[in-house]
Amino acid sequence: MSEANLVSVLDRPGTVRVEERRRPVPGPGEVLVKVAAVGVCGSDVHFYEHGRIGEFVVCAPLVLGHEASGVIVERGDGAHRHELGQRVALEPGVPCGRCARCRAGGYNLCPEVRFFATPPIDGAFARYVVINENFAYPVPDTVTDEQAALMEPFSVGLWAVRRAGVCAGDTVLVTGAGPIGLLAAQAARVAGAARVVVTDLSAGRRDLALRLGADEALDAREGDLSALGADVMLECSGAQPAVTSGLAAVRPGGTAVLVGMGADEVTLPMSALQVREITVTGTFRYANTYPAAIALAAAGRIQLDPLVTGHYGLNQVEAALTTGSSGEGAVKAVVHPQLDNL
Amino acid sequence: MSEANLVSVLDRPGTVRVEERRRPVPGPGEVLVKVAAVGVCGSDVHFYEHGRIGEFVVCAPLVLGHEASGVIVERGDGAHRHELGQRVALEPGVPCGRCARCRAGGYNLCPEVRFFATPPIDGAFARYVVINENFAYPVPDTVTDEQAALMEPFSVGLWAVRRAGVCAGDTVLVTGAGPIGLLAAQAARVAGAARVVVTDLSAGRRDLALRLGADEALDAREGDLSALGADVMLECSGAQPAVTSGLAAVRPGGTAVLVGMGADEVTLPMSALQVREITVTGTFRYANTYPAAIALAAAGRIQLDPLVTGHYGLNQVEAALTTGSSGEGAVKAVVHPQLDNL
Amino acid sequence: MSEANLVSVLDRPGTVRVEERRRPVPGPGEVLVKVAAVGVCGSDVHFYEHGRIGEFVVCAPLVLGHEASGVIVERGDGAHRHELGQRVALEPGVPCGRCARCRAGGYNLCPEVRFFATPPIDGAFARYVVINENFAYPVPDTVTDEQAALMEPFSVGLWAVRRAGVCAGDTVLVTGAGPIGLLAAQAARVAGAARVVVTDLSAGRRDLALRLGADEALDAREGDLSALGADVMLECSGAQPAVTSGLAAVRPGGTAVLVGMGADEVTLPMSALQVREITVTGTFRYANTYPAAIALAAAGRIQLDPLVTGHYGLNQVEAALTTGSSGEGAVKAVVHPQLDNL
Amino acid sequence: MSEANLVSVLDRPGTVRVEERRRPVPGPGEVLVKVAAVGVCGSDVHFYEHGRIGEFVVCAPLVLGHEASGVIVERGDGAHRHELGQRVALEPGVPCGRCARCRAGGYNLCPEVRFFATPPIDGAFARYVVINENFAYPVPDTVTDEQAALMEPFSVGLWAVRRAGVCAGDTVLVTGAGPIGLLAAQAARVAGAARVVVTDLSAGRRDLALRLGADEALDAREGDLSALGADVMLECSGAQPAVTSGLAAVRPGGTAVLVGMGADEVTLPMSALQVREITVTGTFRYANTYPAAIALAAAGRIQLDPLVTGHYGLNQVEAALTTGSSGEGAVKAVVHPQLDNL
Repeated sequence: MSEANLVSVLDRPGTVRVEERRRPVPGPGEVLVKVAAVGVCGSDVHFYEHGRIGEFVVCAPLVLGHEASGVIVERGDGAHRHELGQRVALEPGVPCGRCARCRAGGYNLCPEVRFFATPPIDGAFARYVVINENFAYPVPDTVTDEQAALMEPFSVGLWAVRRAGVCAGDTVLVTGAGPIGLLAAQAARVAGAARVVVTDLSAGRRDLALRLGADEALDAREGDLSALGADVMLECSGAQPAVTSGLAAVRPGGTAVLVGMGADEVTLPMSALQVREITVTGTFRYANTYPAAIALAAAGRIQLDPLVTGHYGLNQVEAALTTGSSGEGAVKAVVHPQLDNL
Repeated sequence: MSEANLVSVLDRPGTVRVEERRRPVPGPGEVLVKVAAVGVCGSDVHFYEHGRIGEFVVCAPLVLGHEASGVIVERGDGAHRHELGQRVALEPGVPCGRCARCRAGGYNLCPEVRFFATPPIDGAFARYVVINENFAYPVPDTVTDEQAALMEPFSVGLWAVRRAGVCAGDTVLVTGAGPIGLLAAQAARVAGAARVVVTDLSAGRRDLALRLGADEALDAREGDLSALGADVMLECSGAQPAVTSGLAAVRPGGTAVLVGMGADEVTLPMSALQVREITVTGTFRYANTYPAAIALAAAGRIQLDPLVTGHYGLNQVEAALTTGSSGEGAVKAVVHPQLDNL
Repeated sequence: MSEANLVSVLDRPGTVRVEERRRPVPGPGEVLVKVAAVGVCGSDVHFYEHGRIGEFVVCAPLVLGHEASGVIVERGDGAHRHELGQRVALEPGVPCGRCARCRAGGYNLCPEVRFFATPPIDGAFARYVVINENFAYPVPDTVTDEQAALMEPFSVGLWAVRRAGVCAGDTVLVTGAGPIGLLAAQAARVAGAARVVVTDLSAGRRDLALRLGADEALDAREGDLSALGADVMLECSGAQPAVTSGLAAVRPGGTAVLVGMGADEVTLPMSALQVREITVTGTFRYANTYPAAIALAAAGRIQLDPLVTGHYGLNQVEAALTTGSSGEGAVKAVVHPQLDNL
Repeated sequence: MSEANLVSVLDRPGTVRVEERRRPVPGPGEVLVKVAAVGVCGSDVHFYEHGRIGEFVVCAPLVLGHEASGVIVERGDGAHRHELGQRVALEPGVPCGRCARCRAGGYNLCPEVRFFATPPIDGAFARYVVINENFAYPVPDTVTDEQAALMEPFSVGLWAVRRAGVCAGDTVLVTGAGPIGLLAAQAARVAGAARVVVTDLSAGRRDLALRLGADEALDAREGDLSALGADVMLECSGAQPAVTSGLAAVRPGGTAVLVGMGADEVTLPMSALQVREITVTGTFRYANTYPAAIALAAAGRIQLDPLVTGHYGLNQVEAALTTGSSGEGAVKAVVHPQLDNL
């Protein structure tokens, strides 16, 4: 029985159950991780509700969860990087390391990446997972299991900030104060933004943004942002109106990074691209962010705990996946897979 | 009479006439230039046909023409940079030199720039113009007057290439083989592109692209570009279908620069921006390109003469502005303001 | 008498006196500033002691002081940018705005820059100075006169951080904890450094570094830095041993910026440049830093007051210039030119 | 006997012999390559003459040669990338693909890289070698075996150009016209340099530089380069005087890349680093250059054949290694390992 694993499986949209499987065995260069905490991401919820995200379709039972931390309990052949017992944050996508994108440093664009909870790769709502040792990052004792798990969404924010090229002294507009927007705003501040302006339709989210260090939090419907002169816009809502009004707030020569996912297309005013020469791009996950994210968390430069608004055991994954629909108070649910119930 | 100037004036859409004015006197730091050659740009044609381009409206008689070369014949106070008799290419936009954009090196975005042939600033279809001495660039004798005038549209192409970050060995897709596309394609090749693919609907334009060094020239309607894997796309047609099909041809992590002007909005697939992390931007004129453009022309690295398909005197500006509507053979008309007729 | 100005003049090395001059009249685009506070820089001390810095030789009576703030009391023709009474920080170098360096955004390298207190340009140890209005930056009331004056040395640190490309999460080594090192360390932290390590031979300076936010402060003689793996080294001591031991602490692919001035030459190990591909450069003043510096000061992101260790009136400039030789406690002296004595 | 391999072995300084070994078997993801051509590099000569390069010491019989091309004759498990019979250029260093440097795109700085002909890794003066399939790059039939082998030293030049950030229109100074200098000069021209100035003490080398496209070739002892105003300096001689005089030729804000190897230290004037803010770095091999190098060679953008001044069979490796000492005419020797003698 010591070789058993318990995992939470999505069978089909709306149906999650706990299943016993064999505990995975770490292959060469891999480690076995006893999972401590797993954040619930909007993509988990989307798979739960719809069974697919774009071209990624859940065709077989799938374990969700990709924001994970844990402790190393076994090492495969040649896995010497960490000691047994090392607490780690898990970077959930393991790229091939050999293709053109990997070799150029943009491994998030590797076509052969294996990413947790993306069909057909299982995720981390499980007692145990295996992962390449290079994608398990030691965390110091001052970083909690939950904080370590949140290195994943924080990486999304940090990557957006890097792609935007935020500089010390910048004014940064963050549209949308969900978990990613709140973390992107913090990443912007950490990267030197002197003025971080967050917009959200929800007063509760705006309050939370202010508590987490935003300089201003606005309802974009109630004001005109076009005088802001933002150096950078980090779009975290996925809504076309936010893109449109946000772009109007960006200074000539500035940058807009589209992080939020929504419609299949976005419409941009040519004058923003041409007369103001704004650069627009988006983000797909992140690359090379974990060491920086952990260093910043360990140095106390970011606040993660206020984002966590619910705790769940492995038997409660369905509740964790549906808590967001119960009202605006929920921001980030965390699953603790070693516990059955909480 | 030695103090007279002759200029070609646009009174209202469709009406151009030659007018005698006082010859302008160079102010402090300015030079008087006897104009040798002026290329006709699509924006000149647009002002001639419609009387406006976006917010720029022709409200009073306006001298068109901003792609100019000439010779320095007089110097204002403190203008010591050039000798009398120096042949020069004129950079037609003089920025303030003091605002945030100017000081950061992006003077093309200066809100106070004074740009030839943009209301209310007169252009260069004239015997004489004055300009700040720092925006008159010496050209060697190996560069002809016409070539010197074409440093302006070549600057547009060079700027697109710079903003795209074309690297040695890149594959570059240029959509649209008008004057700007043809020059952008050459700029891409000069900047190291190993494979330059040009698309245009016109067989004649495609042939010209090949003559000017493109590796391939295609009709985008007759093939699928999506396997191209272009590092860079330089969109020079202003057409939404070209944007859409061109973006599909760009590799993950690549760049698309929208140079061509057309509709007020552009629609982009989010998957291009996010899943492939393509960076999209546009261009507004250029900055810091003239020294490089002239050095490349002087070194024989680009071919400009094949673009010139018509010559006109100052009395023939209307013909020069309307030649494009007479068939696809016309690429670039050049006005020679010292001559009445040609 | 209302037209009088009082200035502190350096006649020859070691001799400073107060002189009455006519109050300067602002020219076109200039403003007259009633000077509120002026920091004393090492270069002021060097001119006082030696009468020269490299090629810059004091040949005639020179007013020292270039770290200045004040209030606008008069405006020249066309100077509309600020209201009378506006409190401002002064950027002491006004470049030509037209040369290749200016136009490319690197105006600190303008060969025609006119910089306060650099022969033959007078500085700001004076009741009044004139300056181009674009180089006088409004400061909010939350930024004191002294803090506004210190935007100048903070700009030096911020520029070093920009040239180094400090990123969020980086480890940054700052060698030398004089005023510039202390401000560079803060700039690094503001720009996202997760770990800032400062070295200095003086225990007092190390303590101050820690108070100002450094994570560690070391005596480089007592330890080996080579395991640090710094992403960036900001060399602020000007000492060859600091360069050598500091470079050993930089990770492969990292950057070293030499800010401190000392000997005429520096010797670098080729293995650092080649086997580890470290990039080495230096700084000359700064460009485009004031808006960011003021925004960061206004947002309370940096601590400036602890650096100020002495206050002096206009009659006490000599004391301000010599306070540094009286012991290690002195960091930054500030002159208040509206007062005779303090 | 069909399983035999013949290799040229360096036993100790000055002693090379051919030895029969077992033909290597490609492991997972590897291919067996029948070697067609191998260029002789200065590092091969240095190992032959001195038995070491810095910390790399020849302790056991070592096969030299790392500039290689060939044809794929066998594939290991999972090696699907290429067909049997594919002609390939070999990138001789295979990095780990997992460390921080690899993941950030700078895999040339991977501490675990396995590089041909660097103790204890054997090189390519052999009938057969194995290599990871991702480091074998297809070449079209228009690229000869010799040219394919020279993708390696061309990569060194291309990497220098990339690290220098050569832009279209630049003036580039290349000091030293050995094989690397001649290839760096071509890489600079391909990347858009409008003016390439090469210096060398040898008239023959200068002539060759001009034949290969340099705009000027000078004896640095006979003129003063300081008026050149080079945007970029590519130092390929390894000589301190070349560094010193070359730096004087670089414009403010320019870049110098030290490619040539020589003394253990380099001395730089602080005024170049600080007053002119020149950026100085070096190169260690290259990363991500092969696809670009091959694309440029296939497009006929560079000239490689004139560099090859001698051909040798596997029995003649010693002659190939010593030809350089016989006079200045020799530039690049090529070994053809399938032939015993030539």
